Amino acid sequence: MALFSKDIQTMDDLFLHALQDIYYAEKKIESTLPKMIQKAGAGPLRDGFESHLDETHGHVERLEQAFTWLDKTPTVVSCPAIDGIIREADEIAHDISDQSVMDAALAAAAQAVEHYEITRYGTLIAWAREMDRNDLVELFEATLKEEKAADSRLTELAEARLNATA
Amino acid sequence: MALFSKDIQTMDDLFLHALQDIYYAEKKIESTLPKMIQKAGAGPLRDGFESHLDETHGHVERLEQAFTWLDKTPTVVSCPAIDGIIREADEIAHDISDQSVMDAALAAAAQAVEHYEITRYGTLIAWAREMDRNDLVELFEATLKEEKAADSRLTELAEARLNATA
Repeated sequence: MALFSKDIQTMDDLFLHALQDIYYAEKKIESTLPKMIQKAGAGPLRDGFESHLDETHGHVERLEQAFTWLDKTPTVVSCPAIDGIIREADEIAHDISDQSVMDAALAAAAQAVEHYEITRYGTLIAWAREMDRNDLVELFEATLKEEKAADSRLTELAEARLNATA
Repeated sequence: MALFSKDIQTMDDLFLHALQDIYYAEKKIESTLPKMIQKAGAGPLRDGFESHLDETHGHVERLEQAFTWLDKTPTVVSCPAIDGIIREADEIAHDISDQSVMDAALAAAAQAVEHYEITRYGTLIAWAREMDRNDLVELFEATLKEEKAADSRLTELAEARLNATA
């Protein structure tokens, strides 16, 4: 989250900024995942990306719900972190000729994306709890659960690769 | 990791590139943490950053060890992901006037850095296992354990904030 200190003086300001940051990130992921799906080999990696794209639409909707509950219009702030992570995921979606190497690289890029989301939703949940906003805690916990599950599926794929080569 | 596909055709290429990426990241963290220490309030957050800076020197050394074991000279590749994450951590280290809000923002930025490292070392370990390089697996597991502990300490700090405000 690109924080401009003049705008951020209270925890409420910080929270709103974090929300705008992850809203930007989820929308960027929504537009990037289709390219990763095209590059992924058939099978569980591609299936995983496809089901995570469906989940991502839901994450965007939950964030819009959070803005509404806070009486704010959904807006984004640019975020150098997710831009950098996605640029990597995107750059890798070029022409490595070996599909198996490509899949390993795509899965690693996707895990970096998941971990960024896991840390940001973890922070939002901690701050929402501090602000006594259990409605937001529950909303973000539902998303966090899906992000962690997506990360675990990617770890399982890496382990399956290992078993296949062992 | 900024991947240029022409250079990456095998898992060995991909592994070396990931190593150069995290080497760049650790060196960048080494140069950024002192600024975050200066901005952090006295107490556990500052202590945590200081002890993690010590650990980071060790992580850099372990990576240099890994290059040596692979008969490679330690080199970096630029990495838009960590650049973006660090830019956020750095930008936040400006003048939010309230120290408590500053500490919350710094801790969140640090957790984003930790999660990036956790995902990259997790990937390196999976690939090292696939390459049957148990020496590298053990080396990176030692670092991963410290990164996860640093992340847990930051989560505990957020929980302590909550208890203090409850």
